[in-house]
Amino acid sequence: MKRAVVVISGGMDSTTLLYDARRDGYTINAISFNYDQKHKKELKCAQQTCHKLGIKHTIISLDVLNTLAPSALTRKEWDVPEGHYADDNMKQTVVPNRNMVMLALATSYAISKKAKYLFYGVHSGDHAIYPDCRPDFYKYMQDAIMRADWHKVLLRAPYIMKDKGDIVIRGKDLGVDYSLTWTCYQGRDKACGKCGSCVERLEAFEKAGIDDTLEYE
Amino acid sequence: MKRAVVVISGGMDSTTLLYDARRDGYTINAISFNYDQKHKKELKCAQQTCHKLGIKHTIISLDVLNTLAPSALTRKEWDVPEGHYADDNMKQTVVPNRNMVMLALATSYAISKKAKYLFYGVHSGDHAIYPDCRPDFYKYMQDAIMRADWHKVLLRAPYIMKDKGDIVIRGKDLGVDYSLTWTCYQGRDKACGKCGSCVERLEAFEKAGIDDTLEYE
Repeated sequence: MKRAVVVISGGMDSTTLLYDARRDGYTINAISFNYDQKHKKELKCAQQTCHKLGIKHTIISLDVLNTLAPSALTRKEWDVPEGHYADDNMKQTVVPNRNMVMLALATSYAISKKAKYLFYGVHSGDHAIYPDCRPDFYKYMQDAIMRADWHKVLLRAPYIMKDKGDIVIRGKDLGVDYSLTWTCYQGRDKACGKCGSCVERLEAFEKAGIDDTLEYE
Repeated sequence: MKRAVVVISGGMDSTTLLYDARRDGYTINAISFNYDQKHKKELKCAQQTCHKLGIKHTIISLDVLNTLAPSALTRKEWDVPEGHYADDNMKQTVVPNRNMVMLALATSYAISKKAKYLFYGVHSGDHAIYPDCRPDFYKYMQDAIMRADWHKVLLRAPYIMKDKGDIVIRGKDLGVDYSLTWTCYQGRDKACGKCGSCVERLEAFEKAGIDDTLEYE
């Protein structure tokens, strides 16, 4: 039995990755993190997807990250910037070291479940703005994670050189239900269509030639 | 101004490291983690040392680690093993991936405080039992941490090749108050003197030729 832990945010990329790992026959424990993000709706999406696929899912409370290192994604008094995802003002949405914190905890979980693999849905669209989404960061994390315990965990980030358009094309093939994914950084009922995340999502669906069934403001 | 974050457990090693960083003129933010360890007394010691030295101190609640990955250090129904620290049965005290989780959060804190350095008191006595205390693990963590954010944080583990005896000798020179440190893994009022941690502490004081003023059962 190949056991894997998959980190799922509830966004398009990690949801596609969950379908991908499932197609590859892994026995999966999915894990999500609640770091008090404004766009908590993504957690509900993660839950619904896991329920639909019959995958065990755990949501871990990580409000400590907001205490230690606030960002525009978590603090009510800071506005989420509008514009393109790769713009400089999107740097305000960096939650300092978020990926290492989530990977570290997901590794603890993988060790405790004796899972050999840890899947993480990072992709190339994030490289410009988020240093902790770049290949060299993952190369070193992979090395560190493999050495963290007697039980070896292998970190896999198979989309790291793909963009969101490629991921949606892959998702189409896998039959991903994208109506159960959430991308918008604003914490409102419908997607804003204007924040960097929304703009990038819309571009991805256009590239893939698929309709986005999500409701926009 | 050289700013540093120092992770202090309240044990002998990280307490000595705090004194060391202070002697080197760093402006320090100290951070400790409450992961529901039975030996919570160490946190009180960390607090008292920081108070004594006039250093800002934050205790972060990390009970999530106990939820995700239990160990003999955190679960009431599991006994803390007795014997020498390097014995095989001490493996039960491994909290899976604890060091990476603490380092990841301490890095978030360092980034948010714009601290250039992160000090961690790992030492050679842990190499045999804890894979995440070994030099190669730290080499890769150092590389990953440096690449995690626009603000570069440098991980320093200056005691990684020293043993506890060397550390106490160093601490003597620094004037460390070891009565404000806690080492025993049992959660009782006085140190048991029998668990691996106690045995190692007693050996260290003997090597350094210093009296341990702590009360033992």
